[in-house]
Amino acid sequence: MILINGENKSNIEVTDRALQYGDGLFETIAIKSGKAQFLDRHLKRLNVGCTRLRIPLPEHQLLASEVEKLAEDADQAVIKIIITRGSGGRGYRQPDYVHPTRIVSLHPYPDYPVSLKEQGIVARFCETRLGLNSTLAGIKHLNRLEQVMARSEWRDPAILEGIMFDNNGYVIEGTMTNLFYVNDNTLTTAQLDNSGVAGIIRGIILELSANNGLRAVESKIRKAELLLADEVFVCNSIIGIWPVRQIEQTHFSVGPITQRIQAWLTNYEQELPSI
Amino acid sequence: MILINGENKSNIEVTDRALQYGDGLFETIAIKSGKAQFLDRHLKRLNVGCTRLRIPLPEHQLLASEVEKLAEDADQAVIKIIITRGSGGRGYRQPDYVHPTRIVSLHPYPDYPVSLKEQGIVARFCETRLGLNSTLAGIKHLNRLEQVMARSEWRDPAILEGIMFDNNGYVIEGTMTNLFYVNDNTLTTAQLDNSGVAGIIRGIILELSANNGLRAVESKIRKAELLLADEVFVCNSIIGIWPVRQIEQTHFSVGPITQRIQAWLTNYEQELPSI
Repeated sequence: MILINGENKSNIEVTDRALQYGDGLFETIAIKSGKAQFLDRHLKRLNVGCTRLRIPLPEHQLLASEVEKLAEDADQAVIKIIITRGSGGRGYRQPDYVHPTRIVSLHPYPDYPVSLKEQGIVARFCETRLGLNSTLAGIKHLNRLEQVMARSEWRDPAILEGIMFDNNGYVIEGTMTNLFYVNDNTLTTAQLDNSGVAGIIRGIILELSANNGLRAVESKIRKAELLLADEVFVCNSIIGIWPVRQIEQTHFSVGPITQRIQAWLTNYEQELPSI
Repeated sequence: MILINGENKSNIEVTDRALQYGDGLFETIAIKSGKAQFLDRHLKRLNVGCTRLRIPLPEHQLLASEVEKLAEDADQAVIKIIITRGSGGRGYRQPDYVHPTRIVSLHPYPDYPVSLKEQGIVARFCETRLGLNSTLAGIKHLNRLEQVMARSEWRDPAILEGIMFDNNGYVIEGTMTNLFYVNDNTLTTAQLDNSGVAGIIRGIILELSANNGLRAVESKIRKAELLLADEVFVCNSIIGIWPVRQIEQTHFSVGPITQRIQAWLTNYEQELPSI
């Protein structure tokens, strides 16, 4: 089911700027037992993105009610929200009065084996680099060709994620996940000043680490550092946390700090009053 | 009028990857007296883009016949072709069998005063930078948020173009044009290895310069060099060549080399058998 500006339909005007220029933002939200997980955080990030792109902010109550409507009968599912700058304008120039398009769609939950959370995944490095652009870094905008190209580099179903470098060669994130590593009891994830998406689960993990006394830093990560890590994991709103047990020829154990953070996240999900 | 996969309609599936990820390419073609200008070059560039993005190549005969159909009654107009990776796949991962979407649409010719070609335009520098990404550089893909953000920086109708730097601070191009400058009888335009669009008119100008014995180079351009130029101009398929008479506080004269290149381009357009 898809709601476009509140109407149940599946088509959109060709003139929409999302299609013409990728001019918009999105959020991907996990539904568990009919409830949208971390909806308030997703809507806050949408506001950050809209502010950055100068798109009028969506009405949170309206969006929340549409999400709720689509989610209510779903046990496990995924909801995607897309906010576009709508139609109009002359070329790249936006129209004087922007009427954003609001798309809320329900999707099946991907059928990843639950065992991946315990046993970990195999990942690879991608050739496709993330461009450097401070204007667009961090937000979840619709210009996603870099991720599409990176994901097209492999078809082996045993490889669950591809790790991407930025144009300077620093490790940033997975094609669909943020990446963390553990070394000397310190958690490290990439700085996202110039590329990457500031994921909701990434943000929660940094908060939970601070609250629980685990040292966590955002830093420039070199490939060699990552490959020397004690533990590596990736995360996003749909999968939660997947330990990484192998990146190309390098093996990692599913370690105690990753397991501790998984437990914190599970507790946090359960304690949180979800709407 | 809009043809989507040959059908006259104006809506597209929300699932199309152009809307979801900006996963596709486009061409903007000038129509003069019912004829598409440089159509063969546009279709060749589309092939380069499709090859780079690993999208199946469109059938040129089919595309040309659709362009011809839309163009036949138009005196002056613009045709936009969009080729997307179609719908399907799982997240960023493309489907095993890609069925591209083909969109051909007719638009009014923008009403820029003809005098701009003689008297030149006023331009500004943009704050929004072009990201560095060799995978996507040069091709005319649908991830155009950088241009949208740059174009949103000004509303003064007296300013016709914004000049963009890359993330390293080199001058690359305008938001909708390529940029050239002339100094010491040498024509210079930006190298497009890491960002920018390799425009059709830009390519023709480089060829015409070689054929006519004008030294032309592709190089890294610093802002200070540009501002010391004898002549500056911008170009694209719709406007042709506009001299730049002012960039912020710096004035330029509409010089003899720019005028000579304008004349070469006009001759070349008239000599060429267009479809």
